[in-house]
Amino acid sequence: MIEDKNQQRTDLSQLGEFGLIDHLAKSFEVTQKSTIKAIGDDAAVLEFDKDRVVVSTDFLVEGVHFDLSYMPLKHLGYKAVIVNLSDIFAMNAEATQITVSIAVSNRFPLEAIEELYAGVQTACKLYNVDLVGGDTTSSTSGLIISVTAIGQVKTGDEVYRSGAKPNDLLVVSGDLGGAYLGLQVLEREKEVFKVNPNNQPDLDAYTYIIERQLKPEARKDIIKLLADLEVKPTAMIDISDGLSSEILHLCKASKVGCDLYENKMPLDPQVISTSEEFNMDSTTIALSGGEDYELLMTISQDDFPKIKANPHLTVIGYITEEASGAHLVTRGGQKIQLTAQGWNSFETN
Amino acid sequence: MIEDKNQQRTDLSQLGEFGLIDHLAKSFEVTQKSTIKAIGDDAAVLEFDKDRVVVSTDFLVEGVHFDLSYMPLKHLGYKAVIVNLSDIFAMNAEATQITVSIAVSNRFPLEAIEELYAGVQTACKLYNVDLVGGDTTSSTSGLIISVTAIGQVKTGDEVYRSGAKPNDLLVVSGDLGGAYLGLQVLEREKEVFKVNPNNQPDLDAYTYIIERQLKPEARKDIIKLLADLEVKPTAMIDISDGLSSEILHLCKASKVGCDLYENKMPLDPQVISTSEEFNMDSTTIALSGGEDYELLMTISQDDFPKIKANPHLTVIGYITEEASGAHLVTRGGQKIQLTAQGWNSFETN
Repeated sequence: MIEDKNQQRTDLSQLGEFGLIDHLAKSFEVTQKSTIKAIGDDAAVLEFDKDRVVVSTDFLVEGVHFDLSYMPLKHLGYKAVIVNLSDIFAMNAEATQITVSIAVSNRFPLEAIEELYAGVQTACKLYNVDLVGGDTTSSTSGLIISVTAIGQVKTGDEVYRSGAKPNDLLVVSGDLGGAYLGLQVLEREKEVFKVNPNNQPDLDAYTYIIERQLKPEARKDIIKLLADLEVKPTAMIDISDGLSSEILHLCKASKVGCDLYENKMPLDPQVISTSEEFNMDSTTIALSGGEDYELLMTISQDDFPKIKANPHLTVIGYITEEASGAHLVTRGGQKIQLTAQGWNSFETN
Repeated sequence: MIEDKNQQRTDLSQLGEFGLIDHLAKSFEVTQKSTIKAIGDDAAVLEFDKDRVVVSTDFLVEGVHFDLSYMPLKHLGYKAVIVNLSDIFAMNAEATQITVSIAVSNRFPLEAIEELYAGVQTACKLYNVDLVGGDTTSSTSGLIISVTAIGQVKTGDEVYRSGAKPNDLLVVSGDLGGAYLGLQVLEREKEVFKVNPNNQPDLDAYTYIIERQLKPEARKDIIKLLADLEVKPTAMIDISDGLSSEILHLCKASKVGCDLYENKMPLDPQVISTSEEFNMDSTTIALSGGEDYELLMTISQDDFPKIKANPHLTVIGYITEEASGAHLVTRGGQKIQLTAQGWNSFETN
């Protein structure tokens, strides 16, 4: 959080809108066979043969979705891509292209935008997706990023939220609550920094959860794993707004209920210890803390043998009839109705 | 510009993010065969068989691209779609789907957002495109709209900026400069309104140019016309930033020069009379005024007989060797080098 006063500062107006796109696009390579034409024309041209195309889009707004005082621009660029790829994977599809648009106020020099795009580029390389378009414009205040992700899936292989059936198993990838707790740690350090800017925080005990917040990953590996295991989930959704909110979306779309078991929820030891430190209930955090970008899916009981020993997948409950409702079964055996504590960006806190 | 003090005002936080998307999506119908799944899952699912897919995206930012004091929200929603469809048509493609994302501050009630989406819906109906996704979130200030448009084109039918060859004819659809002059009239009326809010402006003499600014159209009809005439342009680009800027893009991408004839430029009588009223040169306005959303194309001389009598297309010059450069040939026969006066949103005026 120490600012380098000598950093180079190139004003965006020196380059102009076209200069900026050309400049930023230069460092991006095209690797997907399906990309016929990337940046440089009125539109990108793509070719998917007979595969289906999936498209998802998300906004990231400064002051709402991120705080630049602890989110480095490179990480932000990376995360903006990841949150969109996560939606593509949640369709059981392969991510192939993205467009990235930014609106920036002129308090951002070119070097800042380059940092942001360096993060976009890192994500593109790691996930093997092509940047094929975007728009850059000025904003009257702050930074706004809009990403559209495109993917492909063999017809019939796509997985919707709506396919869950009673008796299906409720399965989640990875572990939950880390990203939210990482944010709590960063917010606390920001307050400390305000009081004493020379304080160097010791964040060693929180590396995993801070990374979950600042550099989340999308579960491309899970899509491959499911294909390798020959498991096609009956329904799937990505966990961007907290487990309970996503479960309720899935149940509503599938017209089913579910029983979710508190003692089955996958929690990292750092999530448990940090929850205690913050005097928070780790179950509540796993249910309501957003931004984990894990995949929540339902699979047929017939597929259970294929996934049961897998360290990346945890069975956390099962699907019931719609009339039964959606419940959390506590460690004490109590059944509590699930409510969406998902993040609502319009709520005034 | 008279505000209705009794209008209904529903706070966005009452609905929440998911409620808002559900609420807005309700009034949209799916009509495209290629739309398998629209709003309601992690991503939209589309199917184009063996056609190529074209994708384009644009930002519209309050205070930069529009001023709500004279741009009604419904018109803004309409225009946000149109500017993106224009990019799809510029590829010689058919527009099929859009995603619309908005970031709004809570000074906008639900009714305002509904107005905006009513405009989006009108455009969707008129141009036969499906709304298949989007994101709604809060912003710290103002209104920001991000639209991604998707289209399809038979492999090989797509037209890039880069295909123009020496001796090709330079052709433009419709007429030029109207949108810019419409904006000048609106800006003038806004100043008058500030001085005397009871003044009712008489805008009858400016209906065409104001409509060009507030309710532009994208030239879907030209794409159909070209197909009917069996003309495939060698290069094409849409005119969003002024003719000269777009000509220079096309020449650069195609590695050619051009001679553009001042006396050939299509101007509406209202553009000529209003230019005179504002003491502006109509040629300069046609060259530099943006937002006309006409199509600029180059066609082979062999195709000239097919287009020559057509009232929608005007030959305004021809393509030359790259070394000759890009020039305007004035009414007096003088050759002036073309410079991009295209709109640069980063310029500080």
